[in-house]
Amino acid sequence: MSEQSLVSDFKQAMQELAASVNVVTSRHDGSRNGLTATAVCSLSTEPAAMLVCIHKDVQALAEIRASGYFCINVLSADQQNVSDVFAGRSGARGEQRFLEAGDWSPSQSGAPMLDDALASVVCELKEMNQSGTHHICIGHVREVRLNQGASPLIYAQQQYGTLTDLPEAERAA
Amino acid sequence: MSEQSLVSDFKQAMQELAASVNVVTSRHDGSRNGLTATAVCSLSTEPAAMLVCIHKDVQALAEIRASGYFCINVLSADQQNVSDVFAGRSGARGEQRFLEAGDWSPSQSGAPMLDDALASVVCELKEMNQSGTHHICIGHVREVRLNQGASPLIYAQQQYGTLTDLPEAERAA
Repeated sequence: MSEQSLVSDFKQAMQELAASVNVVTSRHDGSRNGLTATAVCSLSTEPAAMLVCIHKDVQALAEIRASGYFCINVLSADQQNVSDVFAGRSGARGEQRFLEAGDWSPSQSGAPMLDDALASVVCELKEMNQSGTHHICIGHVREVRLNQGASPLIYAQQQYGTLTDLPEAERAA
Repeated sequence: MSEQSLVSDFKQAMQELAASVNVVTSRHDGSRNGLTATAVCSLSTEPAAMLVCIHKDVQALAEIRASGYFCINVLSADQQNVSDVFAGRSGARGEQRFLEAGDWSPSQSGAPMLDDALASVVCELKEMNQSGTHHICIGHVREVRLNQGASPLIYAQQQYGTLTDLPEAERAA
């Protein structure tokens, strides 16, 4: 298999990998930044830690490094517009994105928390390791806000969706 | 907020984080191993790379390190039984799991590929970094098998599900 077709197949495979949509935010020198990210994982329970993979050329990455904190806001199914704005689809940048979509309140660290997100998890940045085109940002959890009960916003197969029960025929006995 | 309630809230927040269910496999010294994992991310496109977070006490972790390869099999909605068996719910261990659930074929590296998985991505292990209770396993993609068209198996809010369209009212204009 050629390198080119391997990468093409890899990208297609990654479109099959369903994930919650998150907006990862930070605040540095009074200005707020954020980006939409699906490459977000729970990492450790002792200490409580998460990771997010962010492309090396994204402006918000520098802001996260400078501020030392980031907040992972897990979006609910009715927050697609927030995802779109922070993915750059509206053309807004930086602070303007926060004015265009969502209602926001500051965490103790300053990193913006999205009102009505399914969960907002503020992390203190502990490591930022480059691996190819992306950095792995590892943070220890400092603050959590929960707002359970809503459905998640999920991205997979190049479209938004949400969670539904398995069809009866596909449930294990 | 006490450390204890922070960790409790963190665990609840992570239940809100929806993700595809994967079975991560390896083969070493003729024996096959695998585990169910949701903490799986696309990491880089140049080179094509993925990561998976695995608890430090899991047997399959040692096997991945020893073999130098792992395969991430992205499950489809009708493969819940494969997820259950590789999460240990049937009581089967090691090789027995492969006999109990799924049809498997070897990749070039030896790591088992699950027939009819949405995607199977074989990675060469490049780094394994411990962070708290888990290791981050980073692998460069060597082989991809696609089987698109089915629905994904998703785990969130402590239950299995699959992807469905957003309700009309929740779609952005």
